[in-house]
Amino acid sequence: MDSKPRDRRRFLKKGAALAGLALGTASSASAQTPDSHVPAADGHSTDPKELAKELIAYGERSKFVTSVRVPVAERMSPDMFGLTFHVLTPLQDSVGIITPSSLFYVATHRGSFVPEINPSEHRFMIHGMVDRPLVFTMDELKRLPSVSRIHFIECLGNRAQARHKTVQDTHGLTSCAEWTGVPLSLLLKEAGVQSGASWIVAEGAEEVKGSSSIPLAKAMDDCLVCYGMNGEPLRPQQGFPLRLMVPGFEGIYQIKYLRRIKVVDRYYMTYDDYGHINPDPKVAALTHQIGPKSVITFPSGGQQMSGPGFYEITGLAWSGAGAIRKVEISTDGGRSWHDAELKSPSYRMSHARFGFAWKWDGKECVVMSRCTDELGTMQPTRAEAAKYWNKPLEGFRVPGADNTVQPWKVASDGKVSNGLT
Amino acid sequence: MDSKPRDRRRFLKKGAALAGLALGTASSASAQTPDSHVPAADGHSTDPKELAKELIAYGERSKFVTSVRVPVAERMSPDMFGLTFHVLTPLQDSVGIITPSSLFYVATHRGSFVPEINPSEHRFMIHGMVDRPLVFTMDELKRLPSVSRIHFIECLGNRAQARHKTVQDTHGLTSCAEWTGVPLSLLLKEAGVQSGASWIVAEGAEEVKGSSSIPLAKAMDDCLVCYGMNGEPLRPQQGFPLRLMVPGFEGIYQIKYLRRIKVVDRYYMTYDDYGHINPDPKVAALTHQIGPKSVITFPSGGQQMSGPGFYEITGLAWSGAGAIRKVEISTDGGRSWHDAELKSPSYRMSHARFGFAWKWDGKECVVMSRCTDELGTMQPTRAEAAKYWNKPLEGFRVPGADNTVQPWKVASDGKVSNGLT
Repeated sequence: MDSKPRDRRRFLKKGAALAGLALGTASSASAQTPDSHVPAADGHSTDPKELAKELIAYGERSKFVTSVRVPVAERMSPDMFGLTFHVLTPLQDSVGIITPSSLFYVATHRGSFVPEINPSEHRFMIHGMVDRPLVFTMDELKRLPSVSRIHFIECLGNRAQARHKTVQDTHGLTSCAEWTGVPLSLLLKEAGVQSGASWIVAEGAEEVKGSSSIPLAKAMDDCLVCYGMNGEPLRPQQGFPLRLMVPGFEGIYQIKYLRRIKVVDRYYMTYDDYGHINPDPKVAALTHQIGPKSVITFPSGGQQMSGPGFYEITGLAWSGAGAIRKVEISTDGGRSWHDAELKSPSYRMSHARFGFAWKWDGKECVVMSRCTDELGTMQPTRAEAAKYWNKPLEGFRVPGADNTVQPWKVASDGKVSNGLT
Repeated sequence: MDSKPRDRRRFLKKGAALAGLALGTASSASAQTPDSHVPAADGHSTDPKELAKELIAYGERSKFVTSVRVPVAERMSPDMFGLTFHVLTPLQDSVGIITPSSLFYVATHRGSFVPEINPSEHRFMIHGMVDRPLVFTMDELKRLPSVSRIHFIECLGNRAQARHKTVQDTHGLTSCAEWTGVPLSLLLKEAGVQSGASWIVAEGAEEVKGSSSIPLAKAMDDCLVCYGMNGEPLRPQQGFPLRLMVPGFEGIYQIKYLRRIKVVDRYYMTYDDYGHINPDPKVAALTHQIGPKSVITFPSGGQQMSGPGFYEITGLAWSGAGAIRKVEISTDGGRSWHDAELKSPSYRMSHARFGFAWKWDGKECVVMSRCTDELGTMQPTRAEAAKYWNKPLEGFRVPGADNTVQPWKVASDGKVSNGLT
């Protein structure tokens, strides 16, 4: 069979006519659809050699898929590339629980540009209160027993505001991936933690040597020294070649470009340790462990319902305290709640996808989700959080991480907008 | 703090000196390491605007990561881009169970170039022996209840040969992803399957309208009409915008560019249905359901052990019949077998990652893995398969899918090679 473009086009046209379907080819798509889904310059090569490389070596996404991360406007420094850098995952387009590595959120106060580390030169050291200080090459780490786990990360700054338009704006500073690495407990046991040790300080290799203090109990529990993410080496923006994964703790603890861990006998305050040591123990506790939290990704702000009828309400739930046990949906602004279905196995400290069958009657309404984790902790509404903190609801800002319920308002014309006021 | 490159470099150098670690920056890495890990032209932009776009919109992998798919030499047509096109996943570099979408294998006899389908114009039809023929737009499908599941796909042609050098060559025609879509059973129930129907024929929208016949019992069981893969829309080479997922069946049944399903009362032989209808019922059965099968990815052909000592033997196991229950490792050429550890939850029709702690004594040896699935079926050695088929081992070729044990030979100098003869 001849596979010259002209013949292929003719063949396709004929096939489509037979089935009564309108199918696009390269040329017919661009001729027929001058719409916003087709980027003017899509980055795809027309050079046959380049095309062959893309088709064989490392595939790309469709030019019709244009979902991208966007910066957090209020957190960008004037030149966009200072030490502070935050880009949001497009949760409105998410499916399942894995975030593609290319769309994984980034939030940092430790420099927008990533160090270009040659993995063959990278070293990771464990020292301090240990019997045997150890230095590992990447190859040495990869010889050790590894585990793979699906975990979310969330930035403490993932805080919905009334002026945010989309779920990318309100909740885009969380993502979820399959992480692969060596249990930190194995490495610490090998080094021999000395009596009296109670904290570790983990430090990265980037410009500012970003570091955090982490309780030794957490370090010995479920932390991973990761080199893999979604089946590949870590991405540069996620800490290539090595990152400390501290499941369920907020993003700042997940040390990128990990180069050393010092075992110590006290909490050390470090650069960029803003707000994590707080005189109020309740606030301090809420600045490291995230959730329980959930958000509806469809229907969410900026989306358009195409008329009354059946829809599946869907979204994500997660908790720093373990697995999600229950998600409930309200379609009447919180007056009544109904159990949603969990769509995937519920992993500990992982996003969970939920769904809820809904027949929209075409009337204005407010939809919201709330979740309960394996400890029985339920995600609060903003009103419940304000009451807990004994503050007026008007102008209330949750201290620490904000895990309150996100309302989305569906107008009678199907337009969806932020329900926060 | 100043973040000009010169200052950053100076700062890094100072930091590195303090810790006694050699860390690379962009300039120092290229100056210090003229090695094979640094591609001469890495495709990364040096234009600040392009760099900003990459850093914000859609992240990329490190220039030090050069793992790529490669073509199956013996299956490429002379001009490399005919109807037959096979590219292999680099399993030797895999971690965890998710295959990155960019590295997912492709195997097709239905055209190397992918149709560029505009999803807003794509339609999916269910017709034939149904009460209510249905046509769906992509938006309509996305309104319906969805599920997300982790499943492998494997090509029937994933067949190890003695001349293959690496695990990419021997086993690279299998990959695993998180798939999201609508259960086919839901759509078929909505259409109303008529009495007497027993098969479906699923057809794609590409040039040759690739299609396969699938038993109705399987269609009503666990098949998915998928639009999502690893948290994104399907990739073009994986069937964007719509693919039929037939868990555990060989790759040819996972119809890409899915445009219609016809419910029928018999098996239909279709284009590209090579060998799938076979007078021997044993052979016919083995051409649709894959496995149980496993392979060691480290140490595997072409890799180099860096001397005697501790290593984790690791690899992947999968079965078309369900979940993997057990993986065993032999380090003495199959004389003795020891249980490996399963590294991730064991999903049905999914890759499972296994690990086995091993102290290599520096002597020549042969390592191999074998798995047992939830039905109790154990992966056979080539000798066992030859005996089952009542054929001499010399020159034996398994009819249908080859799921036999793969031996890797470790030489005393640490060089690993294919143990097949």
